[in-house]
Amino acid sequence: MSGRASDGATAQPLRIDTLAVVGVGLIGGSFALGLKQAGCVGRVLGVGRKPETLAQARDLGVIDEIATLEQAAREADLIMLAAPVGSFEPIFEGLAANLADTALITDGGSTKGNVVTAARAALGQRIGQFVPAHPIAGSHESGPQAAFADLYRDRHVVVCPLPENTAGAVQFVCDAWRACGACLVTMDVEQHDDVLAAVSHLPHWLASLYVEHVARDANADLNLQLAGAGFGDFSRIAQGSVEMWRDIFMANRPAMLRQLDALHDLLGQAREALRANDEAWLNEILAHAASVRRQWGEQQKRNKQDGGNDPT
Amino acid sequence: MSGRASDGATAQPLRIDTLAVVGVGLIGGSFALGLKQAGCVGRVLGVGRKPETLAQARDLGVIDEIATLEQAAREADLIMLAAPVGSFEPIFEGLAANLADTALITDGGSTKGNVVTAARAALGQRIGQFVPAHPIAGSHESGPQAAFADLYRDRHVVVCPLPENTAGAVQFVCDAWRACGACLVTMDVEQHDDVLAAVSHLPHWLASLYVEHVARDANADLNLQLAGAGFGDFSRIAQGSVEMWRDIFMANRPAMLRQLDALHDLLGQAREALRANDEAWLNEILAHAASVRRQWGEQQKRNKQDGGNDPT
Repeated sequence: MSGRASDGATAQPLRIDTLAVVGVGLIGGSFALGLKQAGCVGRVLGVGRKPETLAQARDLGVIDEIATLEQAAREADLIMLAAPVGSFEPIFEGLAANLADTALITDGGSTKGNVVTAARAALGQRIGQFVPAHPIAGSHESGPQAAFADLYRDRHVVVCPLPENTAGAVQFVCDAWRACGACLVTMDVEQHDDVLAAVSHLPHWLASLYVEHVARDANADLNLQLAGAGFGDFSRIAQGSVEMWRDIFMANRPAMLRQLDALHDLLGQAREALRANDEAWLNEILAHAASVRRQWGEQQKRNKQDGGNDPT
Repeated sequence: MSGRASDGATAQPLRIDTLAVVGVGLIGGSFALGLKQAGCVGRVLGVGRKPETLAQARDLGVIDEIATLEQAAREADLIMLAAPVGSFEPIFEGLAANLADTALITDGGSTKGNVVTAARAALGQRIGQFVPAHPIAGSHESGPQAAFADLYRDRHVVVCPLPENTAGAVQFVCDAWRACGACLVTMDVEQHDDVLAAVSHLPHWLASLYVEHVARDANADLNLQLAGAGFGDFSRIAQGSVEMWRDIFMANRPAMLRQLDALHDLLGQAREALRANDEAWLNEILAHAASVRRQWGEQQKRNKQDGGNDPT
């Protein structure tokens, strides 16, 4: 591998002779296109289960060659895993047997604790070669035809360095994400899973259960007839992919359960405050929440004006 | 009063010689303007606490004359209460002493159980003259200058007839709301409060408590940094007026507590399902909620195309 910075230094410009993407759809394909656009990648190997998808990715110029997991492990300087998180275990196992000493692995999985557990089990002593990441970017589209070079531009990418990673390995992976235009945030694995549970998984969970509650209610038909824009905004995310969200909840179970314990405590306190006519308590919570939400909205507007992260 | 239909019949066109609105802002003012536009009102009396607001309403042509509650009670055929729900008790008391036998009262309050309790206490035997209503319409603007004739056009107005109302009284009040362009839904008082708790008050409650949870979390700053569009949609309503929502929660306490009991049961079941790795249960709930929400969205689109109720 050329161009990997030595530990701690921001050395020569990033150069990835051979990049491999495992999963050539929106996430993996856009990573390949972003690095191609930045001019820092030699050739791109594409690995996947479906020959027709791989052929499509090659025809679109998203990848240069179709490869096996074994080839990717032997030949690539950087391997990016963009398959569904549920399939990471066999992928890590497939890579482990043939992984070049100089190869680094990163990923685009939306949970990290379970991915790192699978990586440790499969990679063993080579775990330091894996630098986990989670790009907070997406689209309603999927597949190689949906991939585009600027998917990660001005988006947050969370990088979760492991204790076993060298500073050079972390820097190399961070440089690759930065070359795609991403705005990096570093945190540890558990913190990542807690934060994502709090701001992404929990809203989906609550929106879905709330809609289910409304639909189970004795007045379900009238409920839905009278529901307006507030209901619409609050419940919009409940329409998301059932399989994807079920898998995310299962994959991020420990963090979800931590979040749910704390949230249920607060919901219980609020119910008791209402039952006890505790106007002052309710007023304080409502005022604080309104102020936090308003400040968040204003910050989002400023970020957008600065060309920064636009919420997805 | 002329033009009030006899029981059960849809007789001559609606005619309100004297309308009184108590509260001349968005809700009361738009009711007056809607009836003026429909050509079925003679003169409009405006009642309120603030002389300058009343003068403004008169200068804008929203009302014709500034009046006292006593005058309104003696002279009006229809009295519409559009003051904050918390002030209804003294208003009903002020009306009770002088209420003409032929006068009818309706209101625009967003909770009904507490309003009817206040009305019964003040009006006593005259309770049949009050036909409660709740227009599901609003705006971020307020005051007489925000009032406009079409505020209620194609909006749902819930009418909650009391057992003491004559069919003629109900019909007259319904005709008045219809003359403003409203789309009427009839239900009883408890059902109204349950439905509104479910589709309007509960989402605000949950959105606010969810934001508070995120802000109390150990990772609060990172949470808000990484929060995206899903978080934004889900929590948008938490920015609403603190005083208004606190008052609504307190005013609709019995229905809110019924709703919270059922919702907390479901949330508890879901947490147990997650803890027990019960993918099938989660899948079923997520799939059902997604389908209900999708159908609701499609119905809203159809309503909009038909010029029908557009969610507020």
